[in-house]
Amino acid sequence: MKTRNLTLLLDFYELTMANGFFKENPEKIGYFDLYFRKVPDQGGLVVYTGLDQVINYLSNLYFSDSDIKFLRQLGTFEEKFLKYLENFDFKCDVWSMKEGTPAFPNEPLLTVRGPLLQAQLLETMLLNIINHESLIATKARRVCMVAHGRKVMEFGSRRAQGADAATYGARAAVIGGCFGTANVLSAKEFGLKPMGTMAHSWVQSFPSEIEAFEAWMRVYPHNCLLLVDTYDVLNSGVPHAIEVFRQLKRQGIDGPFGIRIDSGDITYLTRQARKMLDQAGFESATITISNALDEEVIQNVLEEGAQVDSFGVGEKMITAASDPVLSGVYKMVAIQEEGKIIPKIKLSNTVEKTTIPGFKHPYRLYDEEGKARGDLLLAADEKVRANSRIYNSDPNKTIQIRRLKNWKLKPLHQQIYTAGKLVYQQPKTLEVKAYSQAKVKELPEACLRLKNPDIYDVFWSKRIRELRTKMIEEFTSK
Amino acid sequence: MKTRNLTLLLDFYELTMANGFFKENPEKIGYFDLYFRKVPDQGGLVVYTGLDQVINYLSNLYFSDSDIKFLRQLGTFEEKFLKYLENFDFKCDVWSMKEGTPAFPNEPLLTVRGPLLQAQLLETMLLNIINHESLIATKARRVCMVAHGRKVMEFGSRRAQGADAATYGARAAVIGGCFGTANVLSAKEFGLKPMGTMAHSWVQSFPSEIEAFEAWMRVYPHNCLLLVDTYDVLNSGVPHAIEVFRQLKRQGIDGPFGIRIDSGDITYLTRQARKMLDQAGFESATITISNALDEEVIQNVLEEGAQVDSFGVGEKMITAASDPVLSGVYKMVAIQEEGKIIPKIKLSNTVEKTTIPGFKHPYRLYDEEGKARGDLLLAADEKVRANSRIYNSDPNKTIQIRRLKNWKLKPLHQQIYTAGKLVYQQPKTLEVKAYSQAKVKELPEACLRLKNPDIYDVFWSKRIRELRTKMIEEFTSK
Repeated sequence: MKTRNLTLLLDFYELTMANGFFKENPEKIGYFDLYFRKVPDQGGLVVYTGLDQVINYLSNLYFSDSDIKFLRQLGTFEEKFLKYLENFDFKCDVWSMKEGTPAFPNEPLLTVRGPLLQAQLLETMLLNIINHESLIATKARRVCMVAHGRKVMEFGSRRAQGADAATYGARAAVIGGCFGTANVLSAKEFGLKPMGTMAHSWVQSFPSEIEAFEAWMRVYPHNCLLLVDTYDVLNSGVPHAIEVFRQLKRQGIDGPFGIRIDSGDITYLTRQARKMLDQAGFESATITISNALDEEVIQNVLEEGAQVDSFGVGEKMITAASDPVLSGVYKMVAIQEEGKIIPKIKLSNTVEKTTIPGFKHPYRLYDEEGKARGDLLLAADEKVRANSRIYNSDPNKTIQIRRLKNWKLKPLHQQIYTAGKLVYQQPKTLEVKAYSQAKVKELPEACLRLKNPDIYDVFWSKRIRELRTKMIEEFTSK
Repeated sequence: MKTRNLTLLLDFYELTMANGFFKENPEKIGYFDLYFRKVPDQGGLVVYTGLDQVINYLSNLYFSDSDIKFLRQLGTFEEKFLKYLENFDFKCDVWSMKEGTPAFPNEPLLTVRGPLLQAQLLETMLLNIINHESLIATKARRVCMVAHGRKVMEFGSRRAQGADAATYGARAAVIGGCFGTANVLSAKEFGLKPMGTMAHSWVQSFPSEIEAFEAWMRVYPHNCLLLVDTYDVLNSGVPHAIEVFRQLKRQGIDGPFGIRIDSGDITYLTRQARKMLDQAGFESATITISNALDEEVIQNVLEEGAQVDSFGVGEKMITAASDPVLSGVYKMVAIQEEGKIIPKIKLSNTVEKTTIPGFKHPYRLYDEEGKARGDLLLAADEKVRANSRIYNSDPNKTIQIRRLKNWKLKPLHQQIYTAGKLVYQQPKTLEVKAYSQAKVKELPEACLRLKNPDIYDVFWSKRIRELRTKMIEEFTSK
């Protein structure tokens, strides 16, 4: 997977523009911010994920001979430009939040500075990776939150939107809080433990359920997790499972034992199964469920008193089915000509959708208890004093102006590439997960909840606010 | 892309079961059907897509040294089994519908016969590929249908769920009816023409919109398609575009000219823009729109009188956002021991969800006008006579029994692999598209519509129906 060349995974207009930039002014520098405007599922935060894959992509950028040949025969591009691509030498600076950082609308997750024609070519893949992985990590956080400490396993590969969606989606789900994944490739690539036991086909392939369970017991005496719903959970599956657990116990093996239920009324079946297991003396046998689960179903069945130790969550998490798109955008915020940075804006129908001009970085504001109180965007070369006024970026908030007071600023951006050279050490997936969970804990609890979360504040410095207001006025008064 | 090894992209339980099958009886043969139960978006048909990728996957199955090493250190598998994987020799038979075939619930799209432990290992990737590509092709058919002959371009890579979702999704969208894609990698891999012109960043990178348009005109005088909504569509974008078209006309260049609008009220803006272009003498200049489109929005704006020549459709098609999962399943339908085929069933809460036991193939039934009247499942070794009774698989249909009469049977399954050897010549993507459109035309019109389509009949032979009834009774009377 590491060597796959995705350089040509771009939108054709990036190449036609690059060809144009190359002809008009190949030296022109551009600044681009990657950000989103809306949290999926009307949630309170996005778990920013994808940097690992971004680094993998950026560090493997090259146009192969067959890529150049394909582009040449289209007849759209100048030969000189094709030569430039053939010798493509990545020269951009890249800043990014650390993977796992909880992030909020309209703050730059990632910023690129570099030759316009290069920075433009990255648009599709940067968005594709970050939109996808962040979407799944964000969804997984919701699912895991309502499981209240019970293990959540990612089981969705078969319904994911392609092989990458399965593999990187599983990674993102773990960063969002899942205990593990069934996807073996993902486990191998990202240092995770693959999980799973048997499917209905194991049970079906034997003349009877009890024979299937006994065969399983012979192969895996020390990890006897049995799928009990091939025929009839309470009349066949659970009694047969108990029979097999008893056989193992007689052999001196005392677990781990467990059952999985993949269909039917979860609340009723797990409560009955729990009673049957307990009465047979298998109080420590676990119950796993895995039938079309998402955060709403999990919340409901737990409220109803379902007896569940762990959840296997499939298609609804791996596709973020309830809201399957994170609409990140990649917008030019400035250009640089002859050493001078010129901020740029894109207007829109609504003020909220109009871009935030200028080269800038995001910071997190902490109070004296170490609780995050909001984020703040500062121009890249800007320093703020302790008592500075800061301005809410959300025009609907009642309190528009605050003072920084004793809040401490911690930068959210790290430099990842300097002039095309990787200068950042990317942590391992499980380290990203731990980091993410620590950062989520710093947030106000009210912005974590599933429905109607409190809107976390993103502030602007006076300079950013005034620049934007001025640029909007200039355009609209023409 | 062709050489990527996805052998380890499987659910862990497939390996634990394979290890079990290997230990219990490595010679046992299994039969698996891949099918779905429900058409997404409550539509009438699924465009079956993914076979090209399936062949690519099956023809590249091998466990690398690092795969084996990873599996060994888990401590779950017997050394003999790991040796078997190390020398994995694919031996399965595979039958499949041709790509692009309109398909219906509960009929086997693809059937695998082979050593149980091999056939089981294919489950995740076969489902992943076919669920994903068929989902997108199915969605694209809906979108293209309501465009009534106007071109639909696939523009969704940046919001797709990963790189494969972008690349294979674009291919599937073309098979479903799209004219082309912006994804250059997909275009290269699948012999398509990549499409697109400029983004807002091109316009922003110049001091003014007119300078940006003039620069574009200099680079692409013979394909001048201008994005007109960076600042103000009707007061700035369209007048500037007309000015540039006039300059080109004076140079003796008469098109193609066109504008693209990516925000705002599509109906109003396109009607006004059309008038302005026509009044300026540019009746042949095209209007493309591309703002959060799907089949409902396209249907609505066309009914409102929007003046559109082509549509660029992004996130809502490439993720099938309104219903982002095709829930295909891969179920064991028989095993074979000592030469004898033993049908298998998996019961469920509802009769509809209970599997259809036995090794079987689907056929399409044609009337004398060449119209498809339904599909028929026959046991693999079964022949039916002209006047045979056939039985509706849908228990809710009023007429349960029909006679074959003069209907002609055409097999839907082709053999793809024989004992692990590829025996099928896969057509090119654009040939698949043409085939699909021809096959959709054969269907009753009432099953094509977006909402409340007529349910296309899937029939069973008497033998299949009786086998299933008998097996259900056997289990439920225990």
